Amino acid sequence: MKKILNNPDNVVPEMLEGFLLAHPGQVRLLAEQQVVLRKAPKAKNKVALLSGGGSGHEPAHAGYVGVGMLDAAVCGNVFASPNPEQILAGLMELKNDAGVLMIIKNYSGDIMNFDIAAELAAEEGIAIDRVIVNDDVALSGRDKADWRRGIAGTVFVHKIVGAAAERGMALGDVKRIAEKTVANMGTMGVALSPCIVPAAGKPGFTLAEGEIEMGLGIHGEAGARKTALMEADALVAEIFDKIVADAGLKQGDKLAVLVNGLGGTPPMELYIMARAAHRLCAAKGMTAGTTWVGDYLTSLEMAGASLTLLKLDDELAGLLADPARTPSFVQ
Amino acid sequence: MKKILNNPDNVVPEMLEGFLLAHPGQVRLLAEQQVVLRKAPKAKNKVALLSGGGSGHEPAHAGYVGVGMLDAAVCGNVFASPNPEQILAGLMELKNDAGVLMIIKNYSGDIMNFDIAAELAAEEGIAIDRVIVNDDVALSGRDKADWRRGIAGTVFVHKIVGAAAERGMALGDVKRIAEKTVANMGTMGVALSPCIVPAAGKPGFTLAEGEIEMGLGIHGEAGARKTALMEADALVAEIFDKIVADAGLKQGDKLAVLVNGLGGTPPMELYIMARAAHRLCAAKGMTAGTTWVGDYLTSLEMAGASLTLLKLDDELAGLLADPARTPSFVQ
Repeated sequence: MKKILNNPDNVVPEMLEGFLLAHPGQVRLLAEQQVVLRKAPKAKNKVALLSGGGSGHEPAHAGYVGVGMLDAAVCGNVFASPNPEQILAGLMELKNDAGVLMIIKNYSGDIMNFDIAAELAAEEGIAIDRVIVNDDVALSGRDKADWRRGIAGTVFVHKIVGAAAERGMALGDVKRIAEKTVANMGTMGVALSPCIVPAAGKPGFTLAEGEIEMGLGIHGEAGARKTALMEADALVAEIFDKIVADAGLKQGDKLAVLVNGLGGTPPMELYIMARAAHRLCAAKGMTAGTTWVGDYLTSLEMAGASLTLLKLDDELAGLLADPARTPSFVQ
Repeated sequence: MKKILNNPDNVVPEMLEGFLLAHPGQVRLLAEQQVVLRKAPKAKNKVALLSGGGSGHEPAHAGYVGVGMLDAAVCGNVFASPNPEQILAGLMELKNDAGVLMIIKNYSGDIMNFDIAAELAAEEGIAIDRVIVNDDVALSGRDKADWRRGIAGTVFVHKIVGAAAERGMALGDVKRIAEKTVANMGTMGVALSPCIVPAAGKPGFTLAEGEIEMGLGIHGEAGARKTALMEADALVAEIFDKIVADAGLKQGDKLAVLVNGLGGTPPMELYIMARAAHRLCAAKGMTAGTTWVGDYLTSLEMAGASLTLLKLDDELAGLLADPARTPSFVQ
């Protein structure tokens, strides 16, 4: 394992200390509970948004705490859900008159822990609801809902739902926007290399020279199939077609596009993928609008990328275009 | 070689096509000459800024074309200088009443080609000047000036000088700001892995398991020394001390800090480095102000990072804080 770190068991608290030192004007930190919060005083009448999950996906989710996106991010250890006490500590900081929406990626451990915390928060008088993000289409044909994981599309949810909350929408409306966003999108990734959890010290899986895994999960969960490395255009076409079929996209649709790097893939390759995705949209008579290209939700240093397509209506397009100002996303 | 691309010889034009498709509101492209330009009509009385160099360092430099930073970026092939014809094409697009400043990283090939283009541009009536960025302190004890390369600190130059130009300063003042920025900063990097130029198909150098190279250049040029992997705090301390000595930093100085990922190193490790850098600043009685953490100027998928320290006075601090809006940097 060749990583720039001190004690592998301390990577999350040390990262969060560095994050706070780098962004002292924007965030504050409950260090013990590993909760990142907006520094600005909370607005009593704005729905508060809390997300989180295992660490190792930076800049998700702490990087998106700020105006127009999240109010809090609860950080578990690497690839491990935060526990209910951590989540409850975050929820208690957000207690307000408008309520709290939790944005949870679809992993059973996360859902269990966030739900336990939500019950405890409700007992404390917090109006609370949740949305589950399950944008991964790689394994959607399988019979277990668990296989439809929450991956990079979660950042579109942060942005759009964050704007809805910032506009002053009520909790029910904010939840409706969140569910519409999730329903309208699909994501699929491809891995070219494994990654190494610091405390483990070795890769969680292996890929042969010249081998890639389509649909691999962001923690190394099995994908749809292992195959030989193919050209970028063919690779994007396979992912694109899978998402189009899953999300029922059709001619005339207006899309937002996210080409998300998993950590070890340079912008050059991501932009080549964006080119392919735009060309496929044009060929299908769909319009590619807002396009994000970069490392938005990663898997440590894993090489690979995912494509997310989000069908926009006027409401979602407007919210996506609203201003945002966070450590890792500004527009 | 496991990369997401089509023909390895076409990576730059395909990347630029994707870049334009992703950012159509902000940039335009001279496709044949590989020049990225601001889409907004040029301001006749604003000094125009042109940078560029070999590709493979994305988001530098095309990602910084926009309000408050660059007016044009000329993109060579991977790790290869653009030729004078490409650079001249960019300069001709910028012809205005206020003049053009070229921001060139200190590589002999770049300087030769940018200078040839500048001579031709001057014959066309363009008022033109240049600044050479040579922030790399790794080899500064050697007798050849060439060894003091231009690396990640170049992005601080883009930001600060871009703000000066946007404020309407005259060419002489903009150049003075540029030279002060270069004089006030130092950078040093460390590589944990090589990277692969697509058209070459194999790494340009090798590092043994557990071995790192201090001061390695952003194209794989030899560094100061190969050594065993060390803990993050020790690694940052070695780099920090080298920069402090080189730039003559002392107690009471106010610094901007850039922890720049070289491509394959996740934000977790970069923030652990930022933590170390801030602690060292505090221990030396220096103030760490503006802190950027992320992949600002990369070497394809190379694992590693660099630290830049920039001594701020009121003028530089103000310019660094000015707004900017480009595809890859917004504040």
